[in-house]
Amino acid sequence: MSVAATQAPFGVALLSGSMAGSNRQFRLAARPEGTPDRDVFELVETDVPEPGPGEVLVRTRYLSVDPYMRGRMDGTSGYADAWEIDDPLQGGVVGEVVESNGAGFEAGDVVTGDLEWADYSTAPGTALQPVDPDLAPVSTALGVLGMPGRTAYFGTREVANVTASDTFVVTGAAGAVGSVAGQIAKLSGARTVGFAGSDEKVRFVEDELGFDACINYEATDDHAAALDEAAPAGVDCYFDNVGGPITDAVFTRLNLDARVAVCGQISMYNATETPTGPRKLRHLISTRATVEGFLVSDFAPRFETATEQLAEWIDSGDLQYRETVTEGLENAPDAFLGLFEGANVGKQLVAVSDGVDSER
Amino acid sequence: MSVAATQAPFGVALLSGSMAGSNRQFRLAARPEGTPDRDVFELVETDVPEPGPGEVLVRTRYLSVDPYMRGRMDGTSGYADAWEIDDPLQGGVVGEVVESNGAGFEAGDVVTGDLEWADYSTAPGTALQPVDPDLAPVSTALGVLGMPGRTAYFGTREVANVTASDTFVVTGAAGAVGSVAGQIAKLSGARTVGFAGSDEKVRFVEDELGFDACINYEATDDHAAALDEAAPAGVDCYFDNVGGPITDAVFTRLNLDARVAVCGQISMYNATETPTGPRKLRHLISTRATVEGFLVSDFAPRFETATEQLAEWIDSGDLQYRETVTEGLENAPDAFLGLFEGANVGKQLVAVSDGVDSER
Repeated sequence: MSVAATQAPFGVALLSGSMAGSNRQFRLAARPEGTPDRDVFELVETDVPEPGPGEVLVRTRYLSVDPYMRGRMDGTSGYADAWEIDDPLQGGVVGEVVESNGAGFEAGDVVTGDLEWADYSTAPGTALQPVDPDLAPVSTALGVLGMPGRTAYFGTREVANVTASDTFVVTGAAGAVGSVAGQIAKLSGARTVGFAGSDEKVRFVEDELGFDACINYEATDDHAAALDEAAPAGVDCYFDNVGGPITDAVFTRLNLDARVAVCGQISMYNATETPTGPRKLRHLISTRATVEGFLVSDFAPRFETATEQLAEWIDSGDLQYRETVTEGLENAPDAFLGLFEGANVGKQLVAVSDGVDSER
Repeated sequence: MSVAATQAPFGVALLSGSMAGSNRQFRLAARPEGTPDRDVFELVETDVPEPGPGEVLVRTRYLSVDPYMRGRMDGTSGYADAWEIDDPLQGGVVGEVVESNGAGFEAGDVVTGDLEWADYSTAPGTALQPVDPDLAPVSTALGVLGMPGRTAYFGTREVANVTASDTFVVTGAAGAVGSVAGQIAKLSGARTVGFAGSDEKVRFVEDELGFDACINYEATDDHAAALDEAAPAGVDCYFDNVGGPITDAVFTRLNLDARVAVCGQISMYNATETPTGPRKLRHLISTRATVEGFLVSDFAPRFETATEQLAEWIDSGDLQYRETVTEGLENAPDAFLGLFEGANVGKQLVAVSDGVDSER
């Protein structure tokens, strides 16, 4: 197949004369205005890249799509570098080493790292972490045992500082981070309340994850009243992935010395103008509440500790997780855009190729 | 003078048959809607109260009016009890002991405590603190050496955690709290920037208090641009007394690990509906900033330490203060309402009677 790069966005622009060793790669075709559409993504065909000295060639098994990537598209995230037009898109990948050029890996090793939205990509061996396929399905290295799980772990325990006597509220409760955060709070003994966007998600959160309550925020505009029922003693910890009107309601229900961990504000990411809402700082004075933003990278020196604890909880059955898997690299943009429509339950992944544990 | 209580609000309703030993006292006549007017205040005449066992009769010298009192009028402050209709208004008072009924004081002692907006009031001796007239003018027990000074001290040092390498920004910079907060930040070595509401205040803050810069927020709508000039390295500490559009601008200029101490939100206190503004939590994620509300009462066990340090700085000339004194108890409502119009420079007081250090 050979089509012009300017054609339909999911056509493949042939950049190489050769079809042997071909690779597909998504690039940023344009900066989105508001909600991205598919014109933002361009799938191009290239040669399979050659690993340089100290580098590894990786065949992508799973690609992670995450809300923070929206910020990289227009360069306003402030913490992950902006993508430039024609840059290959990047994200968390689990893949198999095809070739190691003196990079400390062997062909067949399963690794994870920030790689390209592509069939194949190269990276320095030092930028990759090994994944143990015997520990858990390798896809979990992008979810419950990866960045989202660690974000939940540190945010819940070290930013929200949850204790057994707390009521803990989390938005995006059925999502990759929120689902883990709430379960960790529950394991700490806290009353745990989630917000999620459908009855299906509410059932998942209450029945499978074991939250004390979950509110379908799409089913009511009166989030404060719903909170009064689900969290009658008020809110001690708030783990916010979403922002907007739910957050407004939670701020009116904060208890003395409440802790708000600001992890994400997905409801804002596609806004073309700064959204407005009720001014909320006043609620912090009488409650002496603390609101703190955080990034999981701040806790990098202790990632190993988090991963070990999370794996132990999975092993003991204390921690449940779910993945929503979209098949095919070419469908990665749909998977990404679905995040903003609440299409996923648990971690949203893109399956790009089969591998050793695909039978699990 | 004897007028009906329902007459003009500043007429004196005679509740006592006797003019001998008469006392005037302000009561809450009605809950304000929005900005209070004088109908909210009723000045009534009563007998001078008798101190019960363990109580002291105090003649008011100075009465403090403070923004937080607005919350007590409609019961939404959340931290100071709401006044009920016909309750005597209360506030910080410096006064002279007229009579001590076994309360550990002597006639002539100068004391401070939360008393009534009145010529005379009684209180348990245990609720009063002695004031040393030789240390500083006794009025300072309501300002730089009292609640506002201590609020500035703890908020700046222990909530905003100012250090020498920080840029420290404070709103209400010419006010009772902000003027002290900024000077403490400056003493800590920080670059110190204020926001104030007139050119006169700006001159006071820059020339007398020694801030590095002060922005007249009434002279520009582009507070962010003004900040870029005054705080070119961004904002590490933000001590907020005001809220609203200035705060919106500061949030867009927060540095990594910035600390926001929310002390007051005076721009909101007279709002009849919750004011709206740009949603700001997103700024906290990439900066990992912390926003924390506080009340000075949280630091009560260490008030003495703060007062001693503040007195030392006054003595050494490192700490300047100013007072705006309104004469006459009957004018206390004007003094209070002036707070919301920015009428005061430094601490707003009401002088109710003369006393031993009135010659200073």
